[in-house]
Amino acid sequence: MRTAQAGDMVLLISDDRKRFLIRLEVGGEWHTHRGVLHHDDLIGKPLGRTVYTAIGHPFLALEPSTHDLLQRIKRVTQIIFPKDAAYIAMRLNCHSGQRIVEAGTGSGGLTLALARAVMPNGRVYSYETRPKMQALARRNLERAGLLDYVELKVRDIAEGFDERDADACFLDLREPWNYLAQVRAALKPGGFFGSILPTTNQVSQLIEALERRGFVEIEVEELLLRRYKPVAERLRPMDRMVAHTGYLVFARPVAPEDAAAWRYRDPKHGIWGVEGPPEGTEGTEGDETDEAD
Amino acid sequence: MRTAQAGDMVLLISDDRKRFLIRLEVGGEWHTHRGVLHHDDLIGKPLGRTVYTAIGHPFLALEPSTHDLLQRIKRVTQIIFPKDAAYIAMRLNCHSGQRIVEAGTGSGGLTLALARAVMPNGRVYSYETRPKMQALARRNLERAGLLDYVELKVRDIAEGFDERDADACFLDLREPWNYLAQVRAALKPGGFFGSILPTTNQVSQLIEALERRGFVEIEVEELLLRRYKPVAERLRPMDRMVAHTGYLVFARPVAPEDAAAWRYRDPKHGIWGVEGPPEGTEGTEGDETDEAD
Amino acid sequence: MRTAQAGDMVLLISDDRKRFLIRLEVGGEWHTHRGVLHHDDLIGKPLGRTVYTAIGHPFLALEPSTHDLLQRIKRVTQIIFPKDAAYIAMRLNCHSGQRIVEAGTGSGGLTLALARAVMPNGRVYSYETRPKMQALARRNLERAGLLDYVELKVRDIAEGFDERDADACFLDLREPWNYLAQVRAALKPGGFFGSILPTTNQVSQLIEALERRGFVEIEVEELLLRRYKPVAERLRPMDRMVAHTGYLVFARPVAPEDAAAWRYRDPKHGIWGVEGPPEGTEGTEGDETDEAD
Amino acid sequence: MRTAQAGDMVLLISDDRKRFLIRLEVGGEWHTHRGVLHHDDLIGKPLGRTVYTAIGHPFLALEPSTHDLLQRIKRVTQIIFPKDAAYIAMRLNCHSGQRIVEAGTGSGGLTLALARAVMPNGRVYSYETRPKMQALARRNLERAGLLDYVELKVRDIAEGFDERDADACFLDLREPWNYLAQVRAALKPGGFFGSILPTTNQVSQLIEALERRGFVEIEVEELLLRRYKPVAERLRPMDRMVAHTGYLVFARPVAPEDAAAWRYRDPKHGIWGVEGPPEGTEGTEGDETDEAD
Repeated sequence: MRTAQAGDMVLLISDDRKRFLIRLEVGGEWHTHRGVLHHDDLIGKPLGRTVYTAIGHPFLALEPSTHDLLQRIKRVTQIIFPKDAAYIAMRLNCHSGQRIVEAGTGSGGLTLALARAVMPNGRVYSYETRPKMQALARRNLERAGLLDYVELKVRDIAEGFDERDADACFLDLREPWNYLAQVRAALKPGGFFGSILPTTNQVSQLIEALERRGFVEIEVEELLLRRYKPVAERLRPMDRMVAHTGYLVFARPVAPEDAAAWRYRDPKHGIWGVEGPPEGTEGTEGDETDEAD
Repeated sequence: MRTAQAGDMVLLISDDRKRFLIRLEVGGEWHTHRGVLHHDDLIGKPLGRTVYTAIGHPFLALEPSTHDLLQRIKRVTQIIFPKDAAYIAMRLNCHSGQRIVEAGTGSGGLTLALARAVMPNGRVYSYETRPKMQALARRNLERAGLLDYVELKVRDIAEGFDERDADACFLDLREPWNYLAQVRAALKPGGFFGSILPTTNQVSQLIEALERRGFVEIEVEELLLRRYKPVAERLRPMDRMVAHTGYLVFARPVAPEDAAAWRYRDPKHGIWGVEGPPEGTEGTEGDETDEAD
Repeated sequence: MRTAQAGDMVLLISDDRKRFLIRLEVGGEWHTHRGVLHHDDLIGKPLGRTVYTAIGHPFLALEPSTHDLLQRIKRVTQIIFPKDAAYIAMRLNCHSGQRIVEAGTGSGGLTLALARAVMPNGRVYSYETRPKMQALARRNLERAGLLDYVELKVRDIAEGFDERDADACFLDLREPWNYLAQVRAALKPGGFFGSILPTTNQVSQLIEALERRGFVEIEVEELLLRRYKPVAERLRPMDRMVAHTGYLVFARPVAPEDAAAWRYRDPKHGIWGVEGPPEGTEGTEGDETDEAD
Repeated sequence: MRTAQAGDMVLLISDDRKRFLIRLEVGGEWHTHRGVLHHDDLIGKPLGRTVYTAIGHPFLALEPSTHDLLQRIKRVTQIIFPKDAAYIAMRLNCHSGQRIVEAGTGSGGLTLALARAVMPNGRVYSYETRPKMQALARRNLERAGLLDYVELKVRDIAEGFDERDADACFLDLREPWNYLAQVRAALKPGGFFGSILPTTNQVSQLIEALERRGFVEIEVEELLLRRYKPVAERLRPMDRMVAHTGYLVFARPVAPEDAAAWRYRDPKHGIWGVEGPPEGTEGTEGDETDEAD
């Protein structure tokens, strides 16, 4: 039976539903105003059960998911929400072996999610201008056991990225449109580009710059997460929800001379279908053709 | 410079924005009513550019992301949408090395996403009752180069899973509440459970069964994806959107005798916070305590 | 030029954006911890301007809309949100001259909106079991100058409504399915029925009862209001929003023997179109036929 | 018992759920490819029942609501959706007696909703530059029996509105920011202004102009309508929904010298509360003060 080990992160939930993350160490103690919890009471034992402090207060001990880690990361700024981080990682085609360039690092939330996705054979190269911020991100990644898969750099990306032929690049910056030349230099031809932006004005500005710089397949999306009260006989959405985390922009750099032909066109003025490629409803014709080969 | 290789999947986009997936083979030909495309015109050359058929029709050649693969997978039933697949993988804590049990396989869409997430050191065990469906999933996974990370089994899971101590289990079935004993037997203590369901009645029924079976941390969520027309000077949402893909239910099995204490309670009647753990806004107190150890 | 008159409601906004509703009286005084405001400084003068308390504190004075009245109504329970009230009034075909039956009155929020809609020639008949609640509603309606268009009754509607041949009936009760016989007795043939319910379980139960009782054209909807920060150069949604106010259910009673034929059918199993009548996209054929007559 | 009368609009629903609007005339006939329906079979009889054509085809006969009228109006352009029309009417404080100015008329959909709201004592003044469009709107309003409450004018509103001291003004135009001087001239001090716009760029431009022109209480909102399949035992949202009808902008003109003080400020930079006035959660302090007077 799987048991908790020294070095593992553990999620502890108190009976008033506060949540805490600790990293197990042999002989370690976790001090709380509900009493002391001895790490050794967890090490070598299965999770998914109630543990008690020295004075008898209960905590539910669980393995944290990447989702839990992102929610509980130490931060000084707003971090990217788990729903967005998961989707970004998929849209950027992150998986083991991929090399991903990111700026800025911030508290390291997205970095953590990307590192989880590209481990063990890939790598995240993450740029940040503020040394203190980078130190925080480093600690967050270390705690999560993911530092081996990340290179943190303190640098203004106006000076360019070190990487070439990267698989993907994500910018979480106020003015991403200023760095598209640097992005192109770092990305492999046709690589994956993404960004997250809070305002519509920024989105417009980024679209305009992406088109000018020869990016195509530009897509703007947002994800809304609606949570329900999990009560079988009174099922209903929570009363309030997060209404906006950011607009997600994705694009692909192509040979600049080829870009104009592949630009998005409004259905009224061009050849693109009503809403671009609808999810999961087309392409069968092509796939059938494909069958033949 | 990164170039396309034999065995790579390539996404081809026609000038009327139809999308096609092919797998490169030395000497291969892709026949289309716009002419023949020779695979050798792609192999050894960079992607992110226009290629032409023998009679001069242009296609944009790009590396497909996991997202593209999911959208273009051959299917006979509705598959799980990419936005949901990415989020499920994160909620189930999928990453390299994890062992994930899934039923039913269907066309293999979610299987593909999970395999990408756990490769190269993890494994997906996917169960399906219909042999023909499994054959389709197998072909989809093979084309995507992910079959090595998946074990496909034709079996009614009422008979139980082969696996023990799995990290996570996902059920995409009409009546998941009938198989929770089997899930508990397969999952490690405190492992990750998830399911997707189209109707509210099913969600109620699953919540009720999960509580009876000693699962806690039950969460019900749905993700809405809103897409925008990427036009800088006329930015606006698409006219229509997919309004419902499914309710996502997540839970953790705990020692049955411990479960009752950790059940969700309505804020009016119990101790749980206003909306359960809000994303990214709490836990600092705990983290500070954590600092001390 | 239009000026404020004694008896008018006025919305006062302080410089920290608190909002207050007062009703102007000749010689009246509004006491606030920012000083006294003399009603006579408003009476006979135009609104849409800053007024000052005796000690110089500014307030913006505006005419309140129905929307403002609903937001500021004195309440002891959750009231129906303005977005829902406006939509309900339209779905129930409320306009001058209509006779609308409602239960329960609650704090009178919806009553107020319905009264505004049916004035001056129509009437709202509103039932409530709790006398104290009714007294609150009465005061709210009186303040808004709408009491003349409403008949408030303290009664358990299990005993039936007094009205016959009413144009519409709305139930804001926990178990509306228990009162459909009473609703049928009060409504004219084919009249408008509506209800608002917080949980999916209640919606299912109401649908089932409506079908049993010969109601057709059953529709279940919800309205989501998303607000934006109104900043021209940084336009973006508010960070949080109200995620759930209630499921709206509408239906029409028809001759019981006719009902079965007009029941909703799932597109996979019946004749109804993909999503029922899409808003604003059909019926032209019919209208053309109509042209001919 | 209420019965249908000559002059009434009737909604007819066929057994394949197509919907048709007819206006009853003594001796009238409605010709359809399912046979002829004689109006006299409806006149003097109750609605809410099945009627049959001469060759025995059934139609469900119902009174149409304002909502039904809006959905079935004859149009040549996109009209404002019922959900938006209902909300706009409430935000603009439309009720019997109010005088509302509108431009452009378009097919008359919003005009119809506003006329219903202000009848019998109010009036809608609606401007349109295209005579043919106005003719269509006139016919739509006449069919609905609402023409008495509307004055239709063919005019470019750059030349100004005829009205003064109007209660509210709504612009459904591509560039509403060009006509704010005319709006101010027509509106009473502190009157209600609204507009609907499809793109974020237009919203930004309108906000900027409103601030420059001394409008305050600027609010930007959008309404999303989610519809459910009304099946008791399989309750779920429809698969697809309308994702965007328009951004709604509301504002109030105030004395220009007073406007700057009442401008929206971001909570980080100013005094305005977190999200402006949250619906239904505040003002009690004010109301209590109010009690005292």
